[in-house]
Amino acid sequence: MRTSLSRSSRTQLSAALPIALAMLLGSAPALAAPPAKAADAKPRSMQEIIDASAPSDWRRIEPSNTLVMDLDAGRIVIELAPNLAPEHVANIRTLAREGYWNGTSINRSQDNFVVQWGDPAEDEAKRKPLGSAKAKLPAEFERVRPKGASFDVLPDRDGWAPQVGFVDGFPAGRDPATGTTWLAHCYGMVGAGRDIAADSSNGTELYVVTGQSPRQLDRNITTVGRVVHGIEHLSTMPRGTGPLGFYEKPEQRTPIRTVRLGSELPETERMALEAMRTDTAAFTELVESRRNRRDDFYKRPAGHIDLCNVPLPVRVADAKTKGAK
Amino acid sequence: MRTSLSRSSRTQLSAALPIALAMLLGSAPALAAPPAKAADAKPRSMQEIIDASAPSDWRRIEPSNTLVMDLDAGRIVIELAPNLAPEHVANIRTLAREGYWNGTSINRSQDNFVVQWGDPAEDEAKRKPLGSAKAKLPAEFERVRPKGASFDVLPDRDGWAPQVGFVDGFPAGRDPATGTTWLAHCYGMVGAGRDIAADSSNGTELYVVTGQSPRQLDRNITTVGRVVHGIEHLSTMPRGTGPLGFYEKPEQRTPIRTVRLGSELPETERMALEAMRTDTAAFTELVESRRNRRDDFYKRPAGHIDLCNVPLPVRVADAKTKGAK
Repeated sequence: MRTSLSRSSRTQLSAALPIALAMLLGSAPALAAPPAKAADAKPRSMQEIIDASAPSDWRRIEPSNTLVMDLDAGRIVIELAPNLAPEHVANIRTLAREGYWNGTSINRSQDNFVVQWGDPAEDEAKRKPLGSAKAKLPAEFERVRPKGASFDVLPDRDGWAPQVGFVDGFPAGRDPATGTTWLAHCYGMVGAGRDIAADSSNGTELYVVTGQSPRQLDRNITTVGRVVHGIEHLSTMPRGTGPLGFYEKPEQRTPIRTVRLGSELPETERMALEAMRTDTAAFTELVESRRNRRDDFYKRPAGHIDLCNVPLPVRVADAKTKGAK
Repeated sequence: MRTSLSRSSRTQLSAALPIALAMLLGSAPALAAPPAKAADAKPRSMQEIIDASAPSDWRRIEPSNTLVMDLDAGRIVIELAPNLAPEHVANIRTLAREGYWNGTSINRSQDNFVVQWGDPAEDEAKRKPLGSAKAKLPAEFERVRPKGASFDVLPDRDGWAPQVGFVDGFPAGRDPATGTTWLAHCYGMVGAGRDIAADSSNGTELYVVTGQSPRQLDRNITTVGRVVHGIEHLSTMPRGTGPLGFYEKPEQRTPIRTVRLGSELPETERMALEAMRTDTAAFTELVESRRNRRDDFYKRPAGHIDLCNVPLPVRVADAKTKGAK
């Protein structure tokens, strides 16, 4: 009846989620098994599905499409979503190339909400120059049938959107009637802070969701990507004691060494990451294995999963998933 | 177009959530305004509603119904749910009275999932004696029409339960056909770790949800209460690098000074907390103000809220909410 640290109970309380995967974000199936089938099926565990997956079940996360943030505590990698927020992503790439965030800081950590970073200067006049980056961009809250983007539907009901699923592997909402698509504020998603005006973000000020998914922000702010590695370095930031979790004293801010475009890192410094594709049978089986837990711990499989509860496995390329960093 | 640290943008990105409240957990309305009305209404902000609330809109959190955990970093207060898990809560009270957790530790921190504490000893023989506490308890995953418990319905759709709302102020699911009620795994909810057997928890090993609500655990484990103060001391715990976020080395564990029953603290050490009642017009208005954000930041009110996104204000008794700790 021992419940704490025995291997068995570890496996059970965590529902067999390896920590490297537990830290990762949602994704979903091209199509989930119908409920009837699900009820009878005894799906393999997520780990078993990943271990048995084929190389074709994974996609390379393109270095040119990643931001690599280095803190004293470690490295964070963010995958950008150019098909959903093309102008913001282009500006963010320029800002990273020109070292805009180098020497800036983590300025805010609000429990169960977001961690935010950028130039902490309150005074416009004291802020870092934007270099070649644009000062003004259009709002990119949503896109109608985004060019080049895939969408894999999650059949489960969602209270925030008529349809949910995965656009280019990011959790997303969609209106099937119009094809309007938007990124969803799940744990680990990264957005561009803005002021009152919808078009007042330019990508210099970024935040990551570190709590219960604040889906009310969907279609209200430009969302630009997702943390695919090292989110624990951000989610454990001491909470700020000022209003909304901003740090009250400059020395409480965590310095950012560098934020670079992945493709500009020396080969020796690059981290080759792969994300599980969301349009494969393996992924559909993985999602079903989470919708209906069949291990001995679960006495009542849910028969449902919320968009932001779907894990999206990420691993180091050419490494076994167990070695995922 | 400055987006980061100006007061205005702080207010906006956080949707006007004061940090003391932002840290707190969900609750819901006796009845929410109908969608049509909601669409026309210009509800006050949550803060305005709280500032204008009457003393009768709040309930005292009974000290005899709280666990007070003291770490070097600070104090955590957990409200227990005796109507939902009577035998576990009784055992937990006994364990606290007899100092069971004093000198134990935080043993696990898994990103976007749970933080867990108790006796870290792997070896049954080396574990702390239970004293007067029971070694074996029945599973208390759910209750049919729990005695003495109130239930305030949240009208929003939920994928995990036929009906959701708040039982004694805790987020919960319910089957209206049978009256079966269970606590929901929202951020900050506290559960009793168990092994494979449904009745293998006795309350010695506890965990708190620190990530996206793992609702798949609902009705699969005995949930005993909710953190109502100091959750940031647990949610920022360094993530464990062992399987499932367990710490690999004893020195990585955070020591627990004491866990006491609130009613056994000297008067001078007590913290008088109040939670907003979930059966009042003020609370119904508060929930509606979150279902449809009407401040200038939000361009598209969601017209929906998930159970685990509903804030449950807690404040220090006889203090203005702004002073909530």
